[in-house]
Amino acid sequence: MGVNQITANALVQQLGGQLRGDDVLITNITSLRQANRNDISFLSNPRLRTEAQASRAGVLIVTEKSAEILTGRTLIVTDDPYLYFARVTRLFHPRGRPKAGIHPSASIAATAQIAPNCEIGAHVVIGERTIIKDNTRILAGTVIEEDCTIGQDCFIHANVTIYHGCQLGDRVELHSGCVIGADGFGMAWDKPNNQWFKIAQTGAVVLGNDVEIGANTTIDRGAIENTVIEDDAKIDNQVMIGHNGKIGAHVAIVACTGIAGSTEVGAYSVIGGAAMIGGHLNIPPQTTIGAATAVSHSIKESGHYASIFPLQKHNDWVKNAVHIRHLHEMNQKIKKLELQLAKLTSHLTDSQE
Amino acid sequence: MGVNQITANALVQQLGGQLRGDDVLITNITSLRQANRNDISFLSNPRLRTEAQASRAGVLIVTEKSAEILTGRTLIVTDDPYLYFARVTRLFHPRGRPKAGIHPSASIAATAQIAPNCEIGAHVVIGERTIIKDNTRILAGTVIEEDCTIGQDCFIHANVTIYHGCQLGDRVELHSGCVIGADGFGMAWDKPNNQWFKIAQTGAVVLGNDVEIGANTTIDRGAIENTVIEDDAKIDNQVMIGHNGKIGAHVAIVACTGIAGSTEVGAYSVIGGAAMIGGHLNIPPQTTIGAATAVSHSIKESGHYASIFPLQKHNDWVKNAVHIRHLHEMNQKIKKLELQLAKLTSHLTDSQE
Amino acid sequence: MGVNQITANALVQQLGGQLRGDDVLITNITSLRQANRNDISFLSNPRLRTEAQASRAGVLIVTEKSAEILTGRTLIVTDDPYLYFARVTRLFHPRGRPKAGIHPSASIAATAQIAPNCEIGAHVVIGERTIIKDNTRILAGTVIEEDCTIGQDCFIHANVTIYHGCQLGDRVELHSGCVIGADGFGMAWDKPNNQWFKIAQTGAVVLGNDVEIGANTTIDRGAIENTVIEDDAKIDNQVMIGHNGKIGAHVAIVACTGIAGSTEVGAYSVIGGAAMIGGHLNIPPQTTIGAATAVSHSIKESGHYASIFPLQKHNDWVKNAVHIRHLHEMNQKIKKLELQLAKLTSHLTDSQE
Repeated sequence: MGVNQITANALVQQLGGQLRGDDVLITNITSLRQANRNDISFLSNPRLRTEAQASRAGVLIVTEKSAEILTGRTLIVTDDPYLYFARVTRLFHPRGRPKAGIHPSASIAATAQIAPNCEIGAHVVIGERTIIKDNTRILAGTVIEEDCTIGQDCFIHANVTIYHGCQLGDRVELHSGCVIGADGFGMAWDKPNNQWFKIAQTGAVVLGNDVEIGANTTIDRGAIENTVIEDDAKIDNQVMIGHNGKIGAHVAIVACTGIAGSTEVGAYSVIGGAAMIGGHLNIPPQTTIGAATAVSHSIKESGHYASIFPLQKHNDWVKNAVHIRHLHEMNQKIKKLELQLAKLTSHLTDSQE
Repeated sequence: MGVNQITANALVQQLGGQLRGDDVLITNITSLRQANRNDISFLSNPRLRTEAQASRAGVLIVTEKSAEILTGRTLIVTDDPYLYFARVTRLFHPRGRPKAGIHPSASIAATAQIAPNCEIGAHVVIGERTIIKDNTRILAGTVIEEDCTIGQDCFIHANVTIYHGCQLGDRVELHSGCVIGADGFGMAWDKPNNQWFKIAQTGAVVLGNDVEIGANTTIDRGAIENTVIEDDAKIDNQVMIGHNGKIGAHVAIVACTGIAGSTEVGAYSVIGGAAMIGGHLNIPPQTTIGAATAVSHSIKESGHYASIFPLQKHNDWVKNAVHIRHLHEMNQKIKKLELQLAKLTSHLTDSQE
Repeated sequence: MGVNQITANALVQQLGGQLRGDDVLITNITSLRQANRNDISFLSNPRLRTEAQASRAGVLIVTEKSAEILTGRTLIVTDDPYLYFARVTRLFHPRGRPKAGIHPSASIAATAQIAPNCEIGAHVVIGERTIIKDNTRILAGTVIEEDCTIGQDCFIHANVTIYHGCQLGDRVELHSGCVIGADGFGMAWDKPNNQWFKIAQTGAVVLGNDVEIGANTTIDRGAIENTVIEDDAKIDNQVMIGHNGKIGAHVAIVACTGIAGSTEVGAYSVIGGAAMIGGHLNIPPQTTIGAATAVSHSIKESGHYASIFPLQKHNDWVKNAVHIRHLHEMNQKIKKLELQLAKLTSHLTDSQE
């Protein structure tokens, strides 16, 4: 259980930062706009300074620079107010601890090994030879097939599915409805029989430590090698990672993004949301791919990339979009005009000499 | 149970509208193309008048205007044939009634309160202190965590997940695989430790009355304030609503649309499908966002917006799309040509004066 | 159970092809890059010939043409190395056989009919009058509602949901989290009551033989007629098929694609991933729709279509994308320049005659 209230003074003793102004009892964390005198809020975006000045928050977490203009009130000064605020949220609302025990309705295979301090919810199913390490919580309705390894301190929410042979590191969090290790989309066209022939997907999925996977996200097992999500990668809801993908450490992938098979995303990159990334591509470390952006070839140089069609009123779109189909022609016309004009100018200059 | 058959005469007595022509026994509702003499169908799109004339439907629901050209057959005349048709479908196929009772395999927490006329399916899990009001149906495999409130006459299909603390109004329908209240995608970069630091998501999700949520849709809980879906909003399959979103009353969101965090969609708007809407934006009431459209900034004025790249044969696309990367340059060339031509014309005019 | 090892000689006796070079014991299938002397790999893309030459694979599956340059090693020569490789994967990893029996925690309706050699996993729910034919496997947590028919040799993974009245052919494979037969998104605006009126979705979903459906994919039931997926269609993860859609035989739909209601996709087409296809459209057989492509009107002629906005550095995108909103204007300017220049040229020619 987290704290219910804490004084500003006790807070800086625990989390650091410098207290300015009167001590205040903090009972709640909230937004600048909604805050009242026992609430703590934060100012990280300088554009919200006016809003911060108007806020009735009892305590504001701010940078030294912002502190200068927020006089006469209680402040906690820190280099990174957003991170400080994050730490405060976790102080009030720490991650739940497992209620040790296996619910009687859970179905646990005879050869599964579950650490005694784990929490296994109602109707959970654990397959043969699967190992669940210390302090891990698995909520109701989740199915973990055979030959999986789940690390320590993991938090697997309700109605998750993990196919056979997948491996999770420590402190992994999986949200409801996500599917780890379904077959990759691999098939050969069987010409003699005029039908698709399914390729066995013999790899698995390996998730590193501190990985978080959002609700209804799917990460397919590898065709031959494993699909790998490295340490501290954070993946939002409804993301799709194709077979044999490699997602580097600390990568953040925003919701609704799809990454086709065998693509590698370098460490510390930020992708999406709703980005659409082709297969067999390479995205270098520390790359940013904008929301709703389609990536159809590898990127050679780190940087910030985008490709969205600009929003317009529908009538304007109808008028403008049609020309996209003729850009090549339009370009040819411009070239021709340039040539004609150059010729004409040169002709006139000649005739006037 | 719905009706199995009804005469056209009895139908207008029940649902209104004006009967023209002979009375007909109606046993089925179907499309203009498939209809036979005991079937009822409707004409709402004037472009289908020829198809309506050719249809063998025993009864047609039409407007007064269409009635003029559909002589010699049985018609039901009404202002809004599509709505009338909708009412007929519900007469034949009303929403199922709960079969009161809790399946013996369901796992109900001791402090949960479930109205006695509710239907609770096999392997359903209901958490501590959760309240389920009158006549609500919860189908097999659904998990509702602790401290939720589910209104009257709700219909929650199989394998839904509702995280702790969420609130549903009355007559809410949730389709299979949807996840209500998973954590929003909130984390701060923890520079000193070179890793992400998760921000506790302390808000919940609040769904108003008459909300419908499609299969595998995800609606994240708020970071601080709640994520709110107002009365009668209708959300299709595989939609993603980020944390702190506010979806106004009567909004319709078509499948595969993603709306990032803290975005507000005004009442009566229609969005998508596959629309991609950024975070912290404002979309005014009664706005239409076209399918596959990316919205990256707030919209000031209601209207119909679009932004899709027009479809082409792949070879044409290759030829044309490359120029998009040089539109700025192309525009500069046009400006230069205009200047040169103006100069030349003026020079010639001068020299001829 | 599949084979653990096989000699190259025994392999060609079983699967055909021509063995060249020394016989080799094969214990594993892997990529060119990772292969060692007891591994088999394949060369199907001629661009990987250098990689094949460098590979340490004990056996390579190749075409006659590639065989010419891969001298001095063990080869299996065949017309279609990719298909041959697919067959080898299935030899080593055949589809699992059902472990006949119904798990005691499964909840089976009294009137359901389940063939005795079926495998029914833990916490599975089968509704009234549903029929499950020979050798079908249904894994844990799956819910199949009433009045469904599931063919022979189907493989339904964990946590799948199938709504009432749906029909599956033989050898259908459904991955976890997919939802078959949820209500289509159909409602009429009820003007008198200022709210949406739901249209009963009275059709079902019919899946042909050999259909495969990916994880978290949703296929909605028809409004009136059925939604139909024909034989051997292969649908990847997180795909959405709207109500009344018709997907032709042997169609492949890559992940994250959405196809709105009543659209027909002709046989042998390949769609997506992340393609966005509107409703009431017709896509002819043998059509390819590129990844991330939006289709907003019917296609008349088979071919390869695309519509993605080309990727750019964000700063270049900002500079270029703005001109899209003025393409019509740009085009007008070019027309004007052409006219002016033509006039000027003609004027000059006249004056010089």
